[in-house]
Order: sequence, then C-alpha cells, then structure tokens
Amino acid sequence: MTDIEKILALEEIKQLKARYFRCVDTKDWDGFKSIFADDAVFDISDDVPGGVLTGRENIAQAASVPLAGCISIHHGHCPEISITSDDTAKGIWAMEDVLRWSEGSASPIHSLHGYGHYFETYRKTDGNWQIQTMKLRRLRVDITGWEP
Amino acid sequence: MTDIEKILALEEIKQLKARYFRCVDTKDWDGFKSIFADDAVFDISDDVPGGVLTGRENIAQAASVPLAGCISIHHGHCPEISITSDDTAKGIWAMEDVLRWSEGSASPIHSLHGYGHYFETYRKTDGNWQIQTMKLRRLRVDITGWEP
Amino acid sequence: MTDIEKILALEEIKQLKARYFRCVDTKDWDGFKSIFADDAVFDISDDVPGGVLTGRENIAQAASVPLAGCISIHHGHCPEISITSDDTAKGIWAMEDVLRWSEGSASPIHSLHGYGHYFETYRKTDGNWQIQTMKLRRLRVDITGWEP
Repeated sequence: MTDIEKILALEEIKQLKARYFRCVDTKDWDGFKSIFADDAVFDISDDVPGGVLTGRENIAQAASVPLAGCISIHHGHCPEISITSDDTAKGIWAMEDVLRWSEGSASPIHSLHGYGHYFETYRKTDGNWQIQTMKLRRLRVDITGWEP
Repeated sequence: MTDIEKILALEEIKQLKARYFRCVDTKDWDGFKSIFADDAVFDISDDVPGGVLTGRENIAQAASVPLAGCISIHHGHCPEISITSDDTAKGIWAMEDVLRWSEGSASPIHSLHGYGHYFETYRKTDGNWQIQTMKLRRLRVDITGWEP
Repeated sequence: MTDIEKILALEEIKQLKARYFRCVDTKDWDGFKSIFADDAVFDISDDVPGGVLTGRENIAQAASVPLAGCISIHHGHCPEISITSDDTAKGIWAMEDVLRWSEGSASPIHSLHGYGHYFETYRKTDGNWQIQTMKLRRLRVDITGWEP
C-alpha cells in the first residue's frame, strides 16, 4: 500500500467511526448496521457482565432496544489507527457517552454518563471498511436512578 | 482533483472548523469573521425559532452579542467531510457546547449545555476554504435559570 | 518536504497527542514519558501558579503524583497543527479534563472539571515526533471540595 493509499484508508476509517456515533445518536439503525461486518463482534462486558454480541443484526438489536426512549450522545476522540494490511486495520478511540431516558421508558436507570476507550479492528470488504471487532473498556461510569 | 489534493483540502477544512471553535471561545471576532464566506448562511433555528442569519457580519454580531459576559466552550468531533468539486465541499460535525453567563450579564439564563450536529457546506475562494452554509441540529439542550 | 510527507507528519503528531491523553488516563507512565523530548517544557501556570516543568522525568513526576488515587479523563479536540520545518511543528488543541479523587487520596480537592487549549511545539528526533513545549491555557475550571 502506498503512503497516499494509507492516508485515504485512515480517513475512511475515521469517517466510518464518525457514522457509527452519528447513527447511534440519530437512531439511524440501517445506517448503523452498515458500519459492521456481517460477523462483527462487540464486547460490552465492561457495561453488561458477560456481554459479547456477535453479528451485525444482534449488535444493532442490542443497541437499539435499550436506547428506545433515550436521548443519547456518543462522542469519539483522538483516534490511533494503523493499517495492518491491504484490507485490515486496528484502532483505539477515546469516548464519552451521555444517556438520558424519558420517564415512560422501560429503563431501570434515569441517566448514564461514561468515559472509556474503544479497541477495534477493521476489515475492508467489497471496497468498504467496516468494524470487525470492538471492545469498550471503561474508565468511569456514573449512573443516576429515578428521582422520587 | 488528485488524491493528495483531496486530503490536503480535508485537512484545511478541519483546521478551518477548529479555528471557528477556538475563535468563538477566545472571543476573537476578527478571526471568527474570516471563517465565513461573505454571504454565508447560519441556520440556528433549533436554538432560536426562525433564526437564520445571512452574511458574515450578521453571523459575527449574532454570536458576539449574546456571548458577552459568557464563558463559552464549543467542541467539535468526528468530522465527515467530502469534497464535492475543486472549490466546494460538505461536512457534518458532532458538537457540544457549555455556556455560563456571569451574574452581571444581560442574559436571561445562567447556563446552557447542549449537544448536536453541524451540517455545513464549504467554498474555496481566493485559495481559502470558508464556511458557506451551516445548520445546527440539536440532540439535546439543558438550560438552567438564575438561582435565587 | 512533499505534501504527502507533510500529511504523514500531521497524522503522526495527532497520534502522538492521542497517546499523551490515553497514557495519562490509563496511568501508563512509561508510555507517557516517551511522548516528550528529553528537555521538554510543560507550562501549567494556569493551574499551578509559577508551574513550569522542565524535562521528561519532571513532567511525568508532576503528572503521576497528583493523579494517584484519581480517575482522570483528558480529551483533545480539533487540532490545528502546522509543520514548520523537516523536524519541527507547532499546534493547538482544544481540551477538556474531568478528574475525581477517591476518598483515601491525599488530594485536597474532590473533583476538577476544566476546559482550555494546549499550545505546543513538536520536534522530530531519531525519526519520532515528540512534544517539545506545551502550555495549557484555561478557559474555565470548576473545582469541588470534599462534601462534609
């Protein structure tokens, strides 16, 4: 891969992750699915004990159901991405999320404010980069219950 | 446009928007004006009903007057920019703003903490990229009044 | 320096600063030291009156000691980096930090939430970019004491 091809790949992967964040927060679940490889794996065991989701459909389900009735903000920062071959790459992203559920929702908690890092791998399939694996490692999570 | 020209243009536009955020928060209003095309349009109707500002001078006026007596923080994240021709481009930025007015200020509110996305277009004039149109779409805004 | 070399240098410096933030928050102090030139200077006089740290070891010491017993989050945004020669560069980063000390810690304060900009210079030595000088200019800092 030439230097310019590498730089273009980095930019594509940054925009891939940008769409991930935007699709979650605008609840664009079709767009969200297109971010992930068919057989992607998302490890959220820092949030949900034992939580490892496999497959694009399961990942979208696991994100969309709890976020119903929730205004969510997910921001990503300071990507450290490296291209590991013509069609694979890996990366780390700092992240922050701010979630607030409305009163009528099924959520047991009212709000969550968290910080951490995503550790990810990417794969290029049919000309498009997608997330292959993703693990969220938390630095801190603050949760508030429902005020009486 | 070659690939390297495209990448350079993306970097220039990212730094343009970085200056936008920095100039607002350091109250560098001359720097702020240089970000915008002469006939730029800024749609803030999600914050101010009917609020569509036209022209660099009006945009700077509309930003600088309410921010007097305010310590403001505006951060931008995860740009999704694409070059649409040799001298036009479009982009989306996630954003967060944290505003706090001092007690003596004319503001009716004490603080605002918001999140959303900027939807923008850019134009290159005389070798410099500038913001041509900008619309802020809010995900969430929390406002606090003056404590008694 | 060719355009592609410039773009690669910008990406390396962005990833350098990304490691700075990640190493602080994961308390990877060896990784942290590798970010800085041997004779780096870090001016934190906006946080600590007269605080100017010289040398990689002193900078790491000054960061690691107060952060013991602290969960810290440091995020960087919207870099404005320019290459000033084959082996020098300068940059500005918007930043936010969220620090919370545990009850047993020696810290006199419970939490700090701040915003500002880093003004930095970089130098390339033996093929690696490092931070040469760094000044943190604050926009706002909120500190809370220990609740009774």
